[in-house]
Amino acid sequence: MTPGDAREMHPHRWGDPAAAAALPDAARALVELAFGAAETPAVEEFALPEPTLAEEVVAELRAVVGDEHVLADDDIRRRRTRGKSTPDLLKARAGDFADAPDVVVRPATHDQVQAVLDLAVARRVAVVPFGGGTAVTGGLVALRDGFTGVISLDLGRMKGVRDIDPVSMTATLEPGLRGPEAEALLGEHGLTLGHFPQSFEYASIGGFAATRSSGQSSAGYGRFDAMVVALTAATPSGRLDLGTAPATAAGPDLRQLLLGSEGTLGVITSVTVRVRALPATTAYDGWRWPTFGEGATAMRTLAQSGLLPTVLRLSDETETALNLARPESIGGAGDGGCLMVAGYEGTRAAVDARRAAVSAALEDLGGVPLGEEPGTAWVRGRFHAPYLRDSMLDVGVLVETLETATFWSSLERVYAAVREALTGSLGDQAIVLCHISHVYETGASLYFTVAVKQGEDPLAQWRAAKTAATDAMVDAGATITHHHAVGTDHRPWLAREVGPVGVQILRAVKASLDPAGVLNPGVLIP
Amino acid sequence: MTPGDAREMHPHRWGDPAAAAALPDAARALVELAFGAAETPAVEEFALPEPTLAEEVVAELRAVVGDEHVLADDDIRRRRTRGKSTPDLLKARAGDFADAPDVVVRPATHDQVQAVLDLAVARRVAVVPFGGGTAVTGGLVALRDGFTGVISLDLGRMKGVRDIDPVSMTATLEPGLRGPEAEALLGEHGLTLGHFPQSFEYASIGGFAATRSSGQSSAGYGRFDAMVVALTAATPSGRLDLGTAPATAAGPDLRQLLLGSEGTLGVITSVTVRVRALPATTAYDGWRWPTFGEGATAMRTLAQSGLLPTVLRLSDETETALNLARPESIGGAGDGGCLMVAGYEGTRAAVDARRAAVSAALEDLGGVPLGEEPGTAWVRGRFHAPYLRDSMLDVGVLVETLETATFWSSLERVYAAVREALTGSLGDQAIVLCHISHVYETGASLYFTVAVKQGEDPLAQWRAAKTAATDAMVDAGATITHHHAVGTDHRPWLAREVGPVGVQILRAVKASLDPAGVLNPGVLIP
Repeated sequence: MTPGDAREMHPHRWGDPAAAAALPDAARALVELAFGAAETPAVEEFALPEPTLAEEVVAELRAVVGDEHVLADDDIRRRRTRGKSTPDLLKARAGDFADAPDVVVRPATHDQVQAVLDLAVARRVAVVPFGGGTAVTGGLVALRDGFTGVISLDLGRMKGVRDIDPVSMTATLEPGLRGPEAEALLGEHGLTLGHFPQSFEYASIGGFAATRSSGQSSAGYGRFDAMVVALTAATPSGRLDLGTAPATAAGPDLRQLLLGSEGTLGVITSVTVRVRALPATTAYDGWRWPTFGEGATAMRTLAQSGLLPTVLRLSDETETALNLARPESIGGAGDGGCLMVAGYEGTRAAVDARRAAVSAALEDLGGVPLGEEPGTAWVRGRFHAPYLRDSMLDVGVLVETLETATFWSSLERVYAAVREALTGSLGDQAIVLCHISHVYETGASLYFTVAVKQGEDPLAQWRAAKTAATDAMVDAGATITHHHAVGTDHRPWLAREVGPVGVQILRAVKASLDPAGVLNPGVLIP
Repeated sequence: MTPGDAREMHPHRWGDPAAAAALPDAARALVELAFGAAETPAVEEFALPEPTLAEEVVAELRAVVGDEHVLADDDIRRRRTRGKSTPDLLKARAGDFADAPDVVVRPATHDQVQAVLDLAVARRVAVVPFGGGTAVTGGLVALRDGFTGVISLDLGRMKGVRDIDPVSMTATLEPGLRGPEAEALLGEHGLTLGHFPQSFEYASIGGFAATRSSGQSSAGYGRFDAMVVALTAATPSGRLDLGTAPATAAGPDLRQLLLGSEGTLGVITSVTVRVRALPATTAYDGWRWPTFGEGATAMRTLAQSGLLPTVLRLSDETETALNLARPESIGGAGDGGCLMVAGYEGTRAAVDARRAAVSAALEDLGGVPLGEEPGTAWVRGRFHAPYLRDSMLDVGVLVETLETATFWSSLERVYAAVREALTGSLGDQAIVLCHISHVYETGASLYFTVAVKQGEDPLAQWRAAKTAATDAMVDAGATITHHHAVGTDHRPWLAREVGPVGVQILRAVKASLDPAGVLNPGVLIP
């Protein structure tokens, strides 16, 4: 285990397996797919590749961060291998740790990060910045070709709050802070970031910034990239300090180049974010809609009239029927239709006023109020889905998620196209669930969960489905990812997202900041 | 006059001088500064430099856009010389048209823009993209050094609405549309952009995007850069199409590189913007605050509680006393303090609800309601200030504006530092006015107007004051510009805004997209 870090994830499961609930009843329908096929793989010592990094370089790294912060034991190398996509888990379950880093290096300061980068350039070592390890698109897999070794640059020791400005309502946070750690430290000041992605319990501030994360409360708090007012990064070309005001016309917004750069342009060493007062009151209501389309229209109406709750999500008919949006059984679940959760956070007065206005609008639009139970059930289970995935993999069900976003006028078309691509690839037995969980005036996200019986080669099975789905997104004009980032998995499609000149820009910035190409090689940039 | 464009600006005055009101009574205090010093310069034929562009190149340009769209007469060359900063006007009034372009080229399509750029690269011609000509920071002055000539690339023929998506509430607009033209075309569909900078009557959609413009209704509609969901640009490296969804995690947001690029990286040929329903109701109220600080605190409270009006502005004591915020006399003007205008736009119900909530909050905070007259007076005069400047220059008063933004906790410090820098440079006789007109949860803009009797060399007089003020902004950690862009005037400070590595990134992108450096040379990039 890593010193000073209590929140280590299992090498081939999500989070802390001891915290995982038993497979809920609600998942039985999915489990039936498996016909009792697979056994649960044993947790055992899988072999790791021999490190290639020269002892001399390891010694230099030790001199930078201290002996005890360069770790090379098998356990930590396994825990720093890849992220937590289903392919990542399948590989680890099969004992494939070929992408393990040679060593894990844990800097404590910006200057130590800078020194490690300088050393990596001098010694031609690939550097994979590591925050919470929750990546689901292959962002933690570095190409070894042309490098003398691979370092996992673990930012877990950089977990301070550098500054809180209660007048401007900003906080300067270090990148290694996990979601709950950041909230706890801000909470001492009566503040919250309001950023709660499904990965919240493990994911880090630096990772949120580097991947343009979006949380479940994005309707009220905004995406993470919209919260960032300033940031600092270490690059092979030196230190970058960006952000002098809430908004500026001083040229292109270079913060927006580092946000979403996934460790390929620099290592984000601090982020100044907008914070808000801890909500005094929270309330989450359930609503039923006859169809996904009608629920989506209601969401659009709210977004376009400036009447958004803090949380707004809508499950399609299948997700509602399978009850995955509410892992615990609730009243009204058997009545079909689509479940919406609308949540409100803030002062008592603000919550009451907003809730009354939104509820009136939703009733006008044909929504049926289901009371608080579906909403509170969702809150209880909001971070549990990845544990459920482990349970499903245990019994031979292939489960994975993918997501996109598009403009409202294309939403139905994109929804149909991605569903069709997935079932076309995986067969009619595949179960495809979908929800909308991030809305904007001009469009919304679509988040798909897929479950199917594992075939002979589940990795190839998924690769084909993912390819078909991503092709369908691009063909329909949607983005290849709304909040999971590009990593290595989406990289083949990035040129279709930003065009050849867009790729040229990314390569030019990369070549300028990181001419030796040591930062997360193979990730993001085509 | 240019064919097809009714809204030409005077070569050395703002807008259409026939539309300028006589010097309002309210400005007498400023005029007294001049002691009747200067005479109004005559409008006459000032000499222009000989064009250096080879006839052969002019013929090639004619082949691309058509004979009638390559203009080289003296009148149009004068009207395409520089922008409308006070130094620009002083130079023009003094007969200095040394920065005149050789020819004005008016493409009608993206492909024609691309062809002109390709030709410019082949023939080594500098290209200055021209929208509304309202630049106030030297963004329309190209360096001639190393080029065979300078083209003004006038986008005034590209003024179509390419697409309206009433479901997604987006519109795809061509760059040459002036503010009123865009509003008129959107208005036919019951839509508005809601972007009303002081330059609205002349400035263009492309210019709004290229300079990160911010309008007077930014509290309700947001900055222009926040409205853009997609854009297309022609670059010497080819076409760039960016923006597939309202939000994405597909890498760095490259739209944010083109926004604010001021014609140095590409020519924006279309912009897809979020639009809103035309407001059924508008209401503008006046409020008085005992001090600027108390009014600013009230603005911060509104911004941080999510309770913003559509328009929110606050004049400091001097601006309030001089009544420049309200060019027409109103009741309560003589009572001192600071005038705030709070405006509401939307449906009747939304306006009523928001107005009631904001008004209650402002009364709680100590604001004194002044009724609608100050607000409606402000609306009537909101685009008049540049005309007033011409009248002041006519009588020997040097008038100019500059602006910045900072976080709330630094606002008072930045305000004092810039005022001190200006009076320190210009002398105690200088009148310095200020207002806050753009607010965010984390901070706000500060917009200064300066008036002083012109000295022997008013250009040098202003240059010294501008240098002192901008140094003061940077020293105080504020941005060098909130919505006027960098141009040539702020360029010497950009390295202090984004740091040496930030400059390196800009240069790398520039070198990649425009290796010949033909796009707006000398602007923005240090």
